[in-house]
Amino acid sequence: MSAVSERVRRAGESGGRLARAPAEARTRALQALASALAQPAVRARVLEANGRDFAAASGLAAPLLRRLTLDATKLETLADGAGQLAARADPLGTVLARRKLDEGLVLTQERCPLGVLAVVFESRPDALVQIASLALRSGNAVLLKGGREAAESNRALADVVRGALGSSGLPADAVQLLDDRSEVDALLGLEKGVDLVVARGGKEFVEHVRARSRIPVLAHAEGVCHVFLHRSADPSKAAGIVVDSKVSYPAACNAAETLLWEPGAEAALDATVAALRSAGVELRGDGATRARHPDMTVATGADWDAEYGALILAVARVDDLDAALAHIARHGSQHTEAIVAEDRSAAERFLAEVDAACVFHDASTRFADGYRFGLGGEVGIGTGKMHARGPVGVDGLLTFRWLLRGSGQVSADYGPGKKPFLHEEL
Amino acid sequence: MSAVSERVRRAGESGGRLARAPAEARTRALQALASALAQPAVRARVLEANGRDFAAASGLAAPLLRRLTLDATKLETLADGAGQLAARADPLGTVLARRKLDEGLVLTQERCPLGVLAVVFESRPDALVQIASLALRSGNAVLLKGGREAAESNRALADVVRGALGSSGLPADAVQLLDDRSEVDALLGLEKGVDLVVARGGKEFVEHVRARSRIPVLAHAEGVCHVFLHRSADPSKAAGIVVDSKVSYPAACNAAETLLWEPGAEAALDATVAALRSAGVELRGDGATRARHPDMTVATGADWDAEYGALILAVARVDDLDAALAHIARHGSQHTEAIVAEDRSAAERFLAEVDAACVFHDASTRFADGYRFGLGGEVGIGTGKMHARGPVGVDGLLTFRWLLRGSGQVSADYGPGKKPFLHEEL
Repeated sequence: MSAVSERVRRAGESGGRLARAPAEARTRALQALASALAQPAVRARVLEANGRDFAAASGLAAPLLRRLTLDATKLETLADGAGQLAARADPLGTVLARRKLDEGLVLTQERCPLGVLAVVFESRPDALVQIASLALRSGNAVLLKGGREAAESNRALADVVRGALGSSGLPADAVQLLDDRSEVDALLGLEKGVDLVVARGGKEFVEHVRARSRIPVLAHAEGVCHVFLHRSADPSKAAGIVVDSKVSYPAACNAAETLLWEPGAEAALDATVAALRSAGVELRGDGATRARHPDMTVATGADWDAEYGALILAVARVDDLDAALAHIARHGSQHTEAIVAEDRSAAERFLAEVDAACVFHDASTRFADGYRFGLGGEVGIGTGKMHARGPVGVDGLLTFRWLLRGSGQVSADYGPGKKPFLHEEL
Repeated sequence: MSAVSERVRRAGESGGRLARAPAEARTRALQALASALAQPAVRARVLEANGRDFAAASGLAAPLLRRLTLDATKLETLADGAGQLAARADPLGTVLARRKLDEGLVLTQERCPLGVLAVVFESRPDALVQIASLALRSGNAVLLKGGREAAESNRALADVVRGALGSSGLPADAVQLLDDRSEVDALLGLEKGVDLVVARGGKEFVEHVRARSRIPVLAHAEGVCHVFLHRSADPSKAAGIVVDSKVSYPAACNAAETLLWEPGAEAALDATVAALRSAGVELRGDGATRARHPDMTVATGADWDAEYGALILAVARVDDLDAALAHIARHGSQHTEAIVAEDRSAAERFLAEVDAACVFHDASTRFADGYRFGLGGEVGIGTGKMHARGPVGVDGLLTFRWLLRGSGQVSADYGPGKKPFLHEEL
């Protein structure tokens, strides 16, 4: 048995014990994790490890270094997230439906964990604690592989999580750190034992994972998010929302990439353009936009499908709400789409008709986030429609089973002309 | 634009109209479908078309002919299914969660259709009406391709469904019949426009579909279902359940393929073996089973993973419940697993620990079916854990969207040291 399949086996066995333990044990472990992250000695150990990673990573670009760096505030947020999850009702065994098919024949649809997760994430060590916390609350075992720049930080944080499991009488092997990419590749090749792979990172990496794996993969392909300025848009709201959507974290998948505006929204457009300029955003306009703002760069066809991940925004005029919906249907990635409008009926039409995971009215696209949505964090954001959609928290890590408790019934006794089913909801 | 992409476009547009129509319109269409299927003139037309298919299919094997044949009872069951779905609450717009993130910033998680489905099904024309009914209730457009042996029946039934849509003011193009396999292959190659492919049919066909498509595929790979006789099993229940699980429809994916028994269950085993023999089932035993029933064929390693789809059953002795669980974990296909036991705590352990879509106590594996479960039919049975699991009815054809209604909020104002989120459930 290869090293990785042995790890997967141990994860599966530990995950079973984790899932069958009473809800209080998982709650205790999350509380233990939250209080460990608040202890000065633990913090010192984690920050010291992070310091070693930081020292080794001196050549990295500033945004990467910012992701890599842990500090007291980040550790506080993590403790807070684990505490929030500890306070949430345990989802395991929740009954989704209970139906009497016949006397003495009762069907129950009950929530249960997926089983074993494998999560490959970027060089952001706080992601490790978030993901492990969500796995714990949902009763899943998890194999984690973070960016190698954060290796020391990840090891220190994994020790904290495993310590919290152990001190709560739960198997530490429900959370394991994979050592290198070759272990990830070996894991992707397994036929059995891993139920879901969560791939966080660039488009090429996600494609690499999908191509190698027969295991279901949760990943967002890309985030090409739009903000549409309706003619009724309030200029100051428009400027604030678009700046936040683009500038607060340009590398995030929920950042806006294209601004759409319709005739009548000129005041909102002008205020937005001025605010974006002050924030140092490069603007690429179509002909109609450049007729009003001639100093914008010329947008080409490729701009409407670009995920810049940088301080660049494409700007296009559309004829009306219908044309905005058509542009989004054609170029959007079904991630997050927003309208700025004082006209409620226009906003409600936008909310009703856009086919995307998240559709917002008068709010920044950057709210599309598991922590902000109140999910207690996220393992990632899904842009597909199957299973989870949008920010994936605890719910996205669960499935269900159909349990039927009978007393000897056979199917041949039921049907047209025979016994009818009762199908009575309990 | 190719013929099939034009059809997909029309389906998408019609699906949008179907989904945005009031719930009453979808209910009316289902009622219209139910009453059309009860009208003598409609029945005569459908049965006549089916007769033509039957005449052309004279060379087919008896089980295939049975699937192909429509009769008054089958049409009654279909009318009944459509009527049941008409009586169900409309799921669109159902709120799964509503949360106040802050004053004037409210998040709603709302159910919505997947969009456009493509369903490829075997030569069983009643499946067409079942699938179309489920699509209608869930607000999805559907492109259908049935087995070519049922071409005339499918055309007649599709006309009935499209008539019901039209007479209810809904676009008939929400339900379309594809003409041939080349249209299916062209559809699988599309990048956009189809949200889910449901592949019903043999393993090779499902693999063919998966390999060609970037669209998510819902399909059950196989059904290797077990019945385990606990030492507390009641012999007459055991015999009844195992015979029904194997004999009532051996080609079904929810039919049992392997019988497991433990020491102490000899009386249940003997009764079951006798009943299976009377029903003409070939039994293949392991050494321990043949020591008791020497006239069984010898089971080889391959038998424990076989989906016979025929009147053959493998029989193995396991040491105890733990060994039964281990055998099922190794050889089962996560479809449907059953225990026969008078001992409730053994049964509950089995229900708690088997990782499968359906886990039954003292009931035939053949109950794993959307109609029997009270889902108003099924588009298929899923053995994966993502999205739908087990029989897939209306719920499996839905996804959700996150709608956020704000009043100008930006993300940079929230977080540690800034504004806290309220996260108040509404």
